[in-house]
Amino acid sequence: MIKVGIVGGTGYTGSELLRLIAQHPGAQVVAITSRNEDGLEVAKMFPALRGRLNLKFSDPAKTSLADCDVVFFATPHGVAMAQAPALLAAGVRVIDLAADFRIKDAAVFEKWYGMAHSAQDLLGEAVYGLPEVNRAAIRTARLVGMPGCYPTAMQLGFAPLLAQGHALVDESHLIADCKSGVSGAGRKAELGLLLAEASDNFKAYGVAGHRHLPETTQGLGAISGRSVGLNFVPHLVPMIRGILGTLYARILPEAMDVDFQTLYERHYHDEPFVDVMPAGSTPETRSVRASNMLRIAVHRPGAGDTLVVLVVEDNLVKGAAGQAVQCMNLMFGLAETSGLEQIAASP
Amino acid sequence: MIKVGIVGGTGYTGSELLRLIAQHPGAQVVAITSRNEDGLEVAKMFPALRGRLNLKFSDPAKTSLADCDVVFFATPHGVAMAQAPALLAAGVRVIDLAADFRIKDAAVFEKWYGMAHSAQDLLGEAVYGLPEVNRAAIRTARLVGMPGCYPTAMQLGFAPLLAQGHALVDESHLIADCKSGVSGAGRKAELGLLLAEASDNFKAYGVAGHRHLPETTQGLGAISGRSVGLNFVPHLVPMIRGILGTLYARILPEAMDVDFQTLYERHYHDEPFVDVMPAGSTPETRSVRASNMLRIAVHRPGAGDTLVVLVVEDNLVKGAAGQAVQCMNLMFGLAETSGLEQIAASP
Amino acid sequence: MIKVGIVGGTGYTGSELLRLIAQHPGAQVVAITSRNEDGLEVAKMFPALRGRLNLKFSDPAKTSLADCDVVFFATPHGVAMAQAPALLAAGVRVIDLAADFRIKDAAVFEKWYGMAHSAQDLLGEAVYGLPEVNRAAIRTARLVGMPGCYPTAMQLGFAPLLAQGHALVDESHLIADCKSGVSGAGRKAELGLLLAEASDNFKAYGVAGHRHLPETTQGLGAISGRSVGLNFVPHLVPMIRGILGTLYARILPEAMDVDFQTLYERHYHDEPFVDVMPAGSTPETRSVRASNMLRIAVHRPGAGDTLVVLVVEDNLVKGAAGQAVQCMNLMFGLAETSGLEQIAASP
Amino acid sequence: MIKVGIVGGTGYTGSELLRLIAQHPGAQVVAITSRNEDGLEVAKMFPALRGRLNLKFSDPAKTSLADCDVVFFATPHGVAMAQAPALLAAGVRVIDLAADFRIKDAAVFEKWYGMAHSAQDLLGEAVYGLPEVNRAAIRTARLVGMPGCYPTAMQLGFAPLLAQGHALVDESHLIADCKSGVSGAGRKAELGLLLAEASDNFKAYGVAGHRHLPETTQGLGAISGRSVGLNFVPHLVPMIRGILGTLYARILPEAMDVDFQTLYERHYHDEPFVDVMPAGSTPETRSVRASNMLRIAVHRPGAGDTLVVLVVEDNLVKGAAGQAVQCMNLMFGLAETSGLEQIAASP
Repeated sequence: MIKVGIVGGTGYTGSELLRLIAQHPGAQVVAITSRNEDGLEVAKMFPALRGRLNLKFSDPAKTSLADCDVVFFATPHGVAMAQAPALLAAGVRVIDLAADFRIKDAAVFEKWYGMAHSAQDLLGEAVYGLPEVNRAAIRTARLVGMPGCYPTAMQLGFAPLLAQGHALVDESHLIADCKSGVSGAGRKAELGLLLAEASDNFKAYGVAGHRHLPETTQGLGAISGRSVGLNFVPHLVPMIRGILGTLYARILPEAMDVDFQTLYERHYHDEPFVDVMPAGSTPETRSVRASNMLRIAVHRPGAGDTLVVLVVEDNLVKGAAGQAVQCMNLMFGLAETSGLEQIAASP
Repeated sequence: MIKVGIVGGTGYTGSELLRLIAQHPGAQVVAITSRNEDGLEVAKMFPALRGRLNLKFSDPAKTSLADCDVVFFATPHGVAMAQAPALLAAGVRVIDLAADFRIKDAAVFEKWYGMAHSAQDLLGEAVYGLPEVNRAAIRTARLVGMPGCYPTAMQLGFAPLLAQGHALVDESHLIADCKSGVSGAGRKAELGLLLAEASDNFKAYGVAGHRHLPETTQGLGAISGRSVGLNFVPHLVPMIRGILGTLYARILPEAMDVDFQTLYERHYHDEPFVDVMPAGSTPETRSVRASNMLRIAVHRPGAGDTLVVLVVEDNLVKGAAGQAVQCMNLMFGLAETSGLEQIAASP
Repeated sequence: MIKVGIVGGTGYTGSELLRLIAQHPGAQVVAITSRNEDGLEVAKMFPALRGRLNLKFSDPAKTSLADCDVVFFATPHGVAMAQAPALLAAGVRVIDLAADFRIKDAAVFEKWYGMAHSAQDLLGEAVYGLPEVNRAAIRTARLVGMPGCYPTAMQLGFAPLLAQGHALVDESHLIADCKSGVSGAGRKAELGLLLAEASDNFKAYGVAGHRHLPETTQGLGAISGRSVGLNFVPHLVPMIRGILGTLYARILPEAMDVDFQTLYERHYHDEPFVDVMPAGSTPETRSVRASNMLRIAVHRPGAGDTLVVLVVEDNLVKGAAGQAVQCMNLMFGLAETSGLEQIAASP
Repeated sequence: MIKVGIVGGTGYTGSELLRLIAQHPGAQVVAITSRNEDGLEVAKMFPALRGRLNLKFSDPAKTSLADCDVVFFATPHGVAMAQAPALLAAGVRVIDLAADFRIKDAAVFEKWYGMAHSAQDLLGEAVYGLPEVNRAAIRTARLVGMPGCYPTAMQLGFAPLLAQGHALVDESHLIADCKSGVSGAGRKAELGLLLAEASDNFKAYGVAGHRHLPETTQGLGAISGRSVGLNFVPHLVPMIRGILGTLYARILPEAMDVDFQTLYERHYHDEPFVDVMPAGSTPETRSVRASNMLRIAVHRPGAGDTLVVLVVEDNLVKGAAGQAVQCMNLMFGLAETSGLEQIAASP
């Protein structure tokens, strides 16, 4: 039984980790920290866990995580970089769901996140936790930086196009028009996230530049081996969970005869959590609600020169906590799907 | 492995049965019928099941269900009564999620449902599938009539009050103000259920008399051994799943000193799927979303003579498919919680 | 043109006042104060007002409201009582949308609102702003305390029953099961009001005792001339605007022959903003969305001894800002409906 | 007072026409037809109109519309083309909200709408009802074909870029990623539009080709005088009203120095219903909810070569009924804004 610690368990990624690990046959949460909620029963804050998790939040200052096999950071950016070195030194593996270990170039991190990076020596070792791209490295990693929710959808959506050794589409001008449910903004009391403000409403945000952009261009570049240009516009959907990415790429003249449906099906043929749907499909976010599946459909409207790729995931599961558990399974030699086989609750 | 047949699997209770049984360690769906969808892959209609259920809908006229161990009817009222006799004769157990076997008095059934009852000889044998009330009878039943979604909430909410041998509240004047998500109306194309009509909106319906009323008064009478008077007003909530029942009962003068919190806690102490919350709680439907739990809180505002009992359940799980699987588990000697341990997905 | 000042215009009642008065033919907002937003263009905060209101928030310390004809307080409780005396002395009329002048008994106010009342000498003069009950007094009032949103629905829903000189129902045991959209909680950043928390969810709150209770029992007592007993349970609906009150009253034996439909129709026959719907109706909140109408339907299920009265209103309009404008119209001799004739936007 | 007839008043565009014209100072609905609802009071179907519209639906076969000044068709495609000739011959002006008179090329119409065009001789005369583009022609038109909801957003969003005489962006590869509330699908009972299916969910649809595509490319071509290439992907948002178009265009090298913010502001400077928001804005659909405003924001992420234009409108108002009233005002010499000055109801 893997002993799991969670740092910062009062947000949505933290509570989703709790939900998943409480149902995991091979792992158990033994400690969960919160600066503000020391001593509070977890199930008091999250009544869905009543009877399923008998644990209290504990003050991080008073909590030793060195006995854990793995510690998840479900914290604001900056916490994991401060605590990871000591945990790693104690032989604990670390999975960070924040951005501290996503971006390889510390200067890029510092520009987009507005804080100095205090553990730059770990950036080289840290593995980017996208199993469909980095599976082998994740298996042996001590330190994993989990992708953001949007970057997971964008990278897995574009990957088959970019991974072919030669360019199939205009890689300088990719467009990712992404839409997310509000839980992606986290469990924080902000006016714009109130039901009275955000429901029966739709808007774009972060058009000038969203933090998930540099992470995604880094990942797409790693997949293709070439630099890519990406326009990424996120939008806020009046729903709780789910991301749909609508990805646009202009097919190069020399690739007009490629069978993109087959390309995608082959690329993801053996993946347990990526489902390439039949041609003509329009995946719905609810088809992955509360599950770790990501579904993709490939379209080429009017048989023209534009490819439209639709990607759906649950931002809290495949986009965060589920993918983190998937990485944990790989790191500890468990079945990759262990504890992640919940079928989407739909309707 | 229990071989399960489902008659009428294209509605919400049917698809919820599919979701639950596909994750059940001891049962497997071997046949699912639909008059209109013969030959269609189930996962085509319900993409959430892609990769998890390899089965096609089959025409009921062409499908033998006699090899099943148990057949669930997730059909309109009237279908189960027509087909149950032959199945029972073939040794198949039957669990009906419609109303055919809920009401003991055929005349009452016929009045409220507007159809003759063609299997009245089975009404005596049929067991009402409310485990917290009828557990022993369910274990040995061949034929189970599952409670409606509202009746489950109302009966489990009032039961501790009524089961004490003597009246604690004015049983002639119970009030159940109930609120349900729209999935309770079924998967049918009706104007009033459109998102454009039902969202950002709230209304009562069925005020003059809802079919779940006679079933509930029958059940409450069976619990108390006395006849009860109930006002039941259902409302439509702009959400997908969930029922909240707000139950009002006037405390009798001789019961003013009863500790109702303790009464409820004791009554449900050993129940795996009924959670009596601490005093002062206000249960939320999302705390049971997509799970088989039902949560109760007991209030006595101003220490006055009115008891207010709050009950939440997922209408499709504890109010329908989950409770039906719970009955199946009992009927086949499995652990009662088998396949029903999903934690509510919240948020 | 009536010169209107608004104190505290950044909440929902404030912004709704702005929307209504910007479309009012006989009134104009000349000043709007906010402690935090001094100098900010109002339309910057509320883009719906772009091009329709050319006004900036101003610091209350720097703003003289003595030139206004009327000042609306859309503030937290306690502000109006502090500022009303000076305004009244300057000849300005005052309409308070908070609770400062709702409750006649300062001790009751202090108990429920947890603050001392600093303008008790005005409580006698203050008129309760429910036009259908107090129209004549409002016309000549200098100071009006507007009803809360729930109290408006409950009082107008029960009033015809209680106003008959003799009791028709058991007035000691009225029940008001009320449901409100989240805007009723105000424009404040609280976790429980986030879309991710409150949508696809339903719950009761304030069961132990809500501040709108003493105001309502006071109002009902004033209508009937007798003391009344009321159980009031509010619920949070995942929608923006709207209240539905489901009111229950037990008919007295001597009133079993009363034609309650006719009683209600006659009572509200001449009211421009109260619509008694035909027998059998189930009013929907969207039928009054963004309008000042309140609709009522009267039911007597099974011709029994329980009356069920359904009341819908928009909590921000008839339950707050619209009713306040209605009072302003009365106070200044305008047509009562002036500026309040918007038809509900439905769907 | 303009006498208005409405053919097909039971859908959302029809009911929205009723709402707007009932509040219009210069027009009055004198007849409204419905094949199925002959004799039904309109306010019975649309309770929001109770007390505001005293009119019954009438059978079209029994209803003479020749006395009307103008007839609106809020019908399925194909009805207006059948009835317009006779009405025009009788001197009645016709405004069609369906697609019959949108597309100039009958062959294109017939390909996309799957029906023959029976009034091709009127296609030349019909004016496309987009006032910001065709104001002069609308003033003198007898027959107006109203734009679709998406085409209104796309054309007004791209128009300033295309109307400059020379190309500023790659006009062969425009992308319009559009998102609409469900009312855009009309008031029809379809499974996919149920709240239980469409809420807490997001999906694309019509990716292979949506009927609004040929209309939009025709319109954009008319604006620019050049042919344009457009990828248009519509999405379904779990909200009632509103469209957001996220438009992408690649800036040509020779136009990299253009100040697009100023270009847009100048283009729409005098328009009463188009609001170019300040640089950096992200318009929300609720800021135009139930109003005739359309708001635009212009972005150029990272000062790169991609322009991102955000456009919001209420699909039922500026995207349908409101714009139709705007055309009526022009056709009859009324103030263009008459009856259309409702401020968006937000929240």
